[in-house]
Amino acid sequence: MDYKKKSLLKHAQWKGKIEVVPRCELKTRDDLSVAYTPGVAQPCLEIRDDPDKSYLYTRRGNLVAVISDGSAVLGLGNIGGLAGMPVMEGKCALFKAFGAVDAFPIVLNVQDTDEIVETIKAISPSFGGINLEDISAPRCFEIERRLTEALDIPVFHDDQHGTAVVVLGALYNALKLVGKDITRIRVCLSGPGAAGTAIAKLLMTAGVKDLTAVDYNGILYPEKEGLDWAKRELASVTNPRGLRGGLAEAMRGADVFIGVSAKGIVSGDMVKSMADKAIVFAMANPDPEITPEVALEAGAYIAGSGRSDCKNQINNVLAFPGIFRGALDARVRKITDGMKIAAARALADMIPEGELRTDNIIPNALDKTVAMRVAQAVKSAAR
Amino acid sequence: MDYKKKSLLKHAQWKGKIEVVPRCELKTRDDLSVAYTPGVAQPCLEIRDDPDKSYLYTRRGNLVAVISDGSAVLGLGNIGGLAGMPVMEGKCALFKAFGAVDAFPIVLNVQDTDEIVETIKAISPSFGGINLEDISAPRCFEIERRLTEALDIPVFHDDQHGTAVVVLGALYNALKLVGKDITRIRVCLSGPGAAGTAIAKLLMTAGVKDLTAVDYNGILYPEKEGLDWAKRELASVTNPRGLRGGLAEAMRGADVFIGVSAKGIVSGDMVKSMADKAIVFAMANPDPEITPEVALEAGAYIAGSGRSDCKNQINNVLAFPGIFRGALDARVRKITDGMKIAAARALADMIPEGELRTDNIIPNALDKTVAMRVAQAVKSAAR
Repeated sequence: MDYKKKSLLKHAQWKGKIEVVPRCELKTRDDLSVAYTPGVAQPCLEIRDDPDKSYLYTRRGNLVAVISDGSAVLGLGNIGGLAGMPVMEGKCALFKAFGAVDAFPIVLNVQDTDEIVETIKAISPSFGGINLEDISAPRCFEIERRLTEALDIPVFHDDQHGTAVVVLGALYNALKLVGKDITRIRVCLSGPGAAGTAIAKLLMTAGVKDLTAVDYNGILYPEKEGLDWAKRELASVTNPRGLRGGLAEAMRGADVFIGVSAKGIVSGDMVKSMADKAIVFAMANPDPEITPEVALEAGAYIAGSGRSDCKNQINNVLAFPGIFRGALDARVRKITDGMKIAAARALADMIPEGELRTDNIIPNALDKTVAMRVAQAVKSAAR
Repeated sequence: MDYKKKSLLKHAQWKGKIEVVPRCELKTRDDLSVAYTPGVAQPCLEIRDDPDKSYLYTRRGNLVAVISDGSAVLGLGNIGGLAGMPVMEGKCALFKAFGAVDAFPIVLNVQDTDEIVETIKAISPSFGGINLEDISAPRCFEIERRLTEALDIPVFHDDQHGTAVVVLGALYNALKLVGKDITRIRVCLSGPGAAGTAIAKLLMTAGVKDLTAVDYNGILYPEKEGLDWAKRELASVTNPRGLRGGLAEAMRGADVFIGVSAKGIVSGDMVKSMADKAIVFAMANPDPEITPEVALEAGAYIAGSGRSDCKNQINNVLAFPGIFRGALDARVRKITDGMKIAAARALADMIPEGELRTDNIIPNALDKTVAMRVAQAVKSAAR
C-alpha cells in the first residue's frame, strides 16, 4: 500500500490523533466534591485573587495552543482551517511525544489579520503559550508581532522560527566541517516567505553579513517594484553587494544555498557555480529545490533537505517541542533571538566531534533526547 | 483536613485536571511520515474537497468545547474566564469519564456579547459541539441563540438546559409518587436566571400550564417595571392567575417549588403553605433555599437539592455527558426540546418501579450507565 492510502486508512482508524483525558479521579462522591463542586470553588477564588496561580491550579503551565487559519498548509496552499486540522493534530501529538508539552489544535474560519488577532487574544487565558502554524506571509509577521505585544505568554510562529533554529543548528556544524567563518560566508536564500524571512533574520543575528534573498521574481533589492512590506524590509537589510538578476546570479559564488521555495528550481549547474565546499540546504516541502543526491553529484560538499528519507534531515520537530518545553518551564513571556540561537547551538552540539561528518550534521528527528537538550538551552538563555 | 484545603492541595498536585495525549504512534520514520508530513497531506486534501470528512479524519466527531467567559461561575459571580478555568477543566474531565466525550476548556477574557459570539464562531471548525458554561443571564440567551443560528454544530448552554433536563426527569418521578398530572400542577420557580428560565420553558413545553416565576424583587408579571428583556418575555408566558407579591405568595398552594436562587430564602412556614404532597427542589448552589431535611419536617412530601450529601441529588452530570454523547453520535445540528424531554424521560425511567421512593426519584450522579441511556434517548429522538 502506498503511503497516501496508508495515511487515509490510519487517519480513519485513529479518528483524531489527539485525545483529551482526565488527570483526576472521578469515582466517589468525595472525588467529585474535590474536582468539581463544591471544592473547585477554592482554586477559582485563589486565581481570581492572584491570576498567577492559574499556573499552579490549572493545566496552563504545560499547555500550548497550535493555531492556524489554514492559509499556508504544507505545500498545499490556502486550504482553510478545517482542512488544515490533520496537520495541527499531528503537531500536537509531536509536542506531547517529544516535549511532554500538552498541545491543543485550534483551527480558525477567519483569515483577516484583525479577526485572527482578536480571536487569539480572547482565548489566550486558556493557554500558557501560542504556537502559530501555517499562516501565510506577510500576515503572519504582523499577527505574531501584535500578539507578542498584547499577551504575557510566549507566541511563536513555528514555520518561521522553528525552521530558522534548525537551519542555524545545521549550518553551525556544516561550517565547522568546511572551515568557514559565519561572518564571512555568502548566503543565497531562495523563498523569502514566512520561513525564509525568519531564517534570513536569525542568520544575520547570528553573524551572517552577506545574504541575498531571491523570490520567484528574482533577487530582492530595495528599489525593486511590487514587493510587499515584509519583502521590502528584508531587501533593505540584505544583498550588500547590490546583486541583480535571478536565482542563478544569486547562487554564483555563494558558500551556502538555503531553499524554502519550490520543487526542482535548482540545477546541477547552479550548484557547480557556487564557491568551493558549498553547502546546500534544499528544504522545499515535500519535494526539494534539488535532491541532496544530485547536489552532491554536482559538487556540493554538504547537502541537506526536509525529507525523512535523506541524510541531514532539517526538520522542525528538532526545535519546537524543546523550545516550548523550555519556555514553559522558565515561564518566559517571549521567545527571544538569544533563546533561538542557544537552541540552535544545542542542536549543533548534540553531534559529538568524532561523529560530525558531512552526512551527519544534525541530530535524528526521532531522537527523543533532543527536546530536553534544547529546553535546557532555552532555560539557560532565559536566565 | 477540610474539603477546601484538600481541594487546593489536590489541584496543585494535578496541575490541571485534563491532559492532551496522542492517539497515534510516533516512534519510527514511517510513523512520522503517516501522522505528519508527507502523509498528513492526504486527509487535508480530502477534507478540503469534502468538509464533512473532518468527522472521519480528525477528532471533531468526538470533541466538545467547554467555553466560558467566567461571568457567572458557580455561586461565585463574575470572577472572569481565567479564574473559572478549574470549573471548566472539571467539566471536561466529567465529559470524558461519564460520556467518553473529549472536551476541551476554553476561557475567554472578553465578556461582550458580540465579541463572545465572534470568537466562538471563529474557532468553531475545531469542534463537533459547543458547551457554553457559566455565562450570565440574559447575555447567555442571546449568545446561545446567535451561535445556534450561525453554526452547523450543536450549541448547548449547560447551566440552562442540563439543569432543566435533570429537574424535569426528577419531576416526572416525583409526580408519579404524588399521583398528580403535569398539566394540572402549580409550580413556583424561584430564580429566573439562566437555569430558571430554561427550567420554566422546558417544563411548560412538557405540559406545565401554571408556573409562576419569582426573582429578588418578587413575582414576575408582564407590566412589572425594571425587568430585562428575558424576564419580560418569561413574565408574558407565566403567572396565568395574575399573582402579585413575593416568594411567600407564589409558594402558597403550589404543588412544586423549584429553586435556583439563593441560600436560605425559603422558610418552613412557606413549605407548610404549599399544596398537599408538596414537591420541593431547592437547588441553590452550594447552599440550598431550604435544606431537604427542613423541608420534609415542614411537611414536604418529596425534597431534592443539588448537594451530593443529600438524597435526590439533582445534578447536571446526569445530563450533559449523555446529551452530547447522543448528539455527537447522531451528528445532530441542534439539540431540540424533543431531545431534552427524551433525555429527562430516560433519567426518570432509570429508576425501576419497585425502587421508586420519595427519597429515590433520580439516578445516582456517579452511575456511569446513565450517560449511555441518556445518549440512546437523544439518538432515538433525533431519528
